[in-house]
Amino acid sequence: MSTVKVSNGDRVSSIEVEDGVSLLEAVSKIKDMHIDASCGGKGTCGKCKVRVLKGDLSEPSKSEIKYLSKEDLKNGYRLSCMVPVTGNIDVLVDSINEKSQILTSHKGFTGKLNPVVQKKHLHLPKPSLKDQRSDLTRLLESISLDAVTVSLSLGQKLPALIRDTDYSVTAVFSSEQLLDVEPGNTESLNYSIAVDIGTTTIAAYLLNSGTGETLDTISGLNSQKIFGADVISRIEYSMQGDGKLELLQKKIVTQISDLCIFLAERNNISRENIYSVMIAGNTTMLHLFYGVDPSGIAVAPFIPGFLRSMNIPSSDFKNFPINCIIYSIPSISGYVGADIVAGILATGIDEKEELSLLIDIGTNGEIVFGNKDKLYCCSTAAGPAFEGAHISCGLGGISGAVDSASIDNSLIKFSTIGDEKAIG
Amino acid sequence: MSTVKVSNGDRVSSIEVEDGVSLLEAVSKIKDMHIDASCGGKGTCGKCKVRVLKGDLSEPSKSEIKYLSKEDLKNGYRLSCMVPVTGNIDVLVDSINEKSQILTSHKGFTGKLNPVVQKKHLHLPKPSLKDQRSDLTRLLESISLDAVTVSLSLGQKLPALIRDTDYSVTAVFSSEQLLDVEPGNTESLNYSIAVDIGTTTIAAYLLNSGTGETLDTISGLNSQKIFGADVISRIEYSMQGDGKLELLQKKIVTQISDLCIFLAERNNISRENIYSVMIAGNTTMLHLFYGVDPSGIAVAPFIPGFLRSMNIPSSDFKNFPINCIIYSIPSISGYVGADIVAGILATGIDEKEELSLLIDIGTNGEIVFGNKDKLYCCSTAAGPAFEGAHISCGLGGISGAVDSASIDNSLIKFSTIGDEKAIG
Repeated sequence: MSTVKVSNGDRVSSIEVEDGVSLLEAVSKIKDMHIDASCGGKGTCGKCKVRVLKGDLSEPSKSEIKYLSKEDLKNGYRLSCMVPVTGNIDVLVDSINEKSQILTSHKGFTGKLNPVVQKKHLHLPKPSLKDQRSDLTRLLESISLDAVTVSLSLGQKLPALIRDTDYSVTAVFSSEQLLDVEPGNTESLNYSIAVDIGTTTIAAYLLNSGTGETLDTISGLNSQKIFGADVISRIEYSMQGDGKLELLQKKIVTQISDLCIFLAERNNISRENIYSVMIAGNTTMLHLFYGVDPSGIAVAPFIPGFLRSMNIPSSDFKNFPINCIIYSIPSISGYVGADIVAGILATGIDEKEELSLLIDIGTNGEIVFGNKDKLYCCSTAAGPAFEGAHISCGLGGISGAVDSASIDNSLIKFSTIGDEKAIG
Repeated sequence: MSTVKVSNGDRVSSIEVEDGVSLLEAVSKIKDMHIDASCGGKGTCGKCKVRVLKGDLSEPSKSEIKYLSKEDLKNGYRLSCMVPVTGNIDVLVDSINEKSQILTSHKGFTGKLNPVVQKKHLHLPKPSLKDQRSDLTRLLESISLDAVTVSLSLGQKLPALIRDTDYSVTAVFSSEQLLDVEPGNTESLNYSIAVDIGTTTIAAYLLNSGTGETLDTISGLNSQKIFGADVISRIEYSMQGDGKLELLQKKIVTQISDLCIFLAERNNISRENIYSVMIAGNTTMLHLFYGVDPSGIAVAPFIPGFLRSMNIPSSDFKNFPINCIIYSIPSISGYVGADIVAGILATGIDEKEELSLLIDIGTNGEIVFGNKDKLYCCSTAAGPAFEGAHISCGLGGISGAVDSASIDNSLIKFSTIGDEKAIG
């Protein structure tokens, strides 16, 4: 074991790691310490440059000689993905520019609301010698649920609850599950969180499930991006074994957990009243979220572990801060994911007579064309061309990125995000 | 807190209890120490007699004066349910006669086998560019399951498992759940345990789920019997609050756990290959097994908490030693339970043209009459008349109980269980 001491100008942290892990990986294990590494640690993007202040290191690799100037090398700069930790190291990393500009506004869904988790206040008919239905049957028949699974804890609390409330309770249910029963009328307290896991950015929306209203929005860069900028880089990283897949999963689950807590607290909403978290994302992002090996997606014939909608209790996720059901939207194939399905449903192009074109340019880009009779879709790695993955120029939507350019009297004019000095 | 030291002739044990709990309850907390108390501790059966050797006790209650002779009282005999612990006590209890005679043979079910948990060995078709189904869809379509819930851990292990086994796996599933996927062909290893929770006795059967064959049987007295001989006594005990319902549940769940382990070990069967435990019993016994308040059953209009079939993962039960699904058979009403439903199904009287009569004389007794068009059932407390609950004579099927009687030349002849001296 060796100690890696990391400073980013603002803060110094230390971590103990096994000898042999890369400096990039060591730093990535420290909360909120990031190194940009869009090729996922393969030494092909040259972006994970750090300055080693102290420590005996291996000789620079070919890749470092290619990406770093002689001046850089002389001053202790190294590509962190190429440097194995073999003793105590002090390292200086850039204070990461995480001020990203992510568009999260939307026109809003105007269709018929059919939330996955519903609430219904019930005045249950009281039992009599002519109505000897059991407590559970009495309740389920009042909300027209039949073939549902009921948890042991719910079965245990039901008899006292309905008597103590004089048969006035609120059922919390989905089409297949009776999730909870609450005393009195709590219909107005029904919230859900919708999350879009983009390869580069992540956005979370707090929704009133009863009205469909979007109450609040938050977004950030996908915390997995230090392990590769695109889906192939992340799949390759996950395939290195030794807990890499679990690390990717932990990163995204922790980030989503943090967003959920933040949204609840900023809106003074009890976490107990958030009954569902709905996840959309491309097929690989969903695999990484669930910790399911995505390696089949990377090579022909491109087979995912799953495509269907998932429905998992949050208790199955380590340390998830909200007791709810985590749903995900189904995907169509390895490269046509739940994000596109969500887009099709939100725009309703699958119900229209006229032909429509839906274009989603993200780090992965998809185009859907067609109408109610048939929809065609194709996809490709789109964003990397703009965002600089695997190539020497370009970057994501962070401060300093050029976000507009025009030619005016033979002069090139441009603006940057945050009006900062252009980088990338 | 006071210390109660209990000797039963074979063994001495001690327990610390809160002052104020009854001596009966204190002793019942000690593993394998029992006091017979068929009225459930209400002082109305006089059977929980113990001899107090040391300790300052309250004056004898009216009930003790009624049930104990002056000689008994002089020698330190007390009714343990009437004696609150208010200081350290040394007590002598009878070495309980637990050698019971319970009939567990049966003719065997000869109908069509349709086990709740099935296994199917699959050679999955391999993926290609023309067959890009996901791993999960490939598997579910091979066993014609569609709308199933899949656990996170199963989703996570599936991709590697089907590739590592070259697409040869065994699916373990019920009609609604994909429970597990195992490498290779494990079809022959499919066991279940059927348990009949009687008010007085409990019987467990180890079954080969593939063939329906009964491999082994074990039975014993229901460990809850010290809290009352009949369902009403136990419901009343559970209503005393202060964890009494939980105690009753723990007793029966622990007993069933022990029977399951015993059956697995005696038959050299891995606990991992027991996929289901199926429970039958009267409505109250099922409530107590699940820890659901049965108090509604005791008074008009006799409303149970639930009647439907339950389907609960064993992980919801504390310390259950087998990772499986615990199913229970549905009941019909508060006093027509899953045991009768099982009897109707096993005999097939619900499918016959001719009228049949099914009689189940247990501690609770039921009679079912009818045919395929309609079945009528009535029930009553039957066994107590023979077994002495709430009355001064009679006992369960233990050594010393009279099990046959005849008159031969004006002489009464009788035999007893175990050929022991007649008691009761």
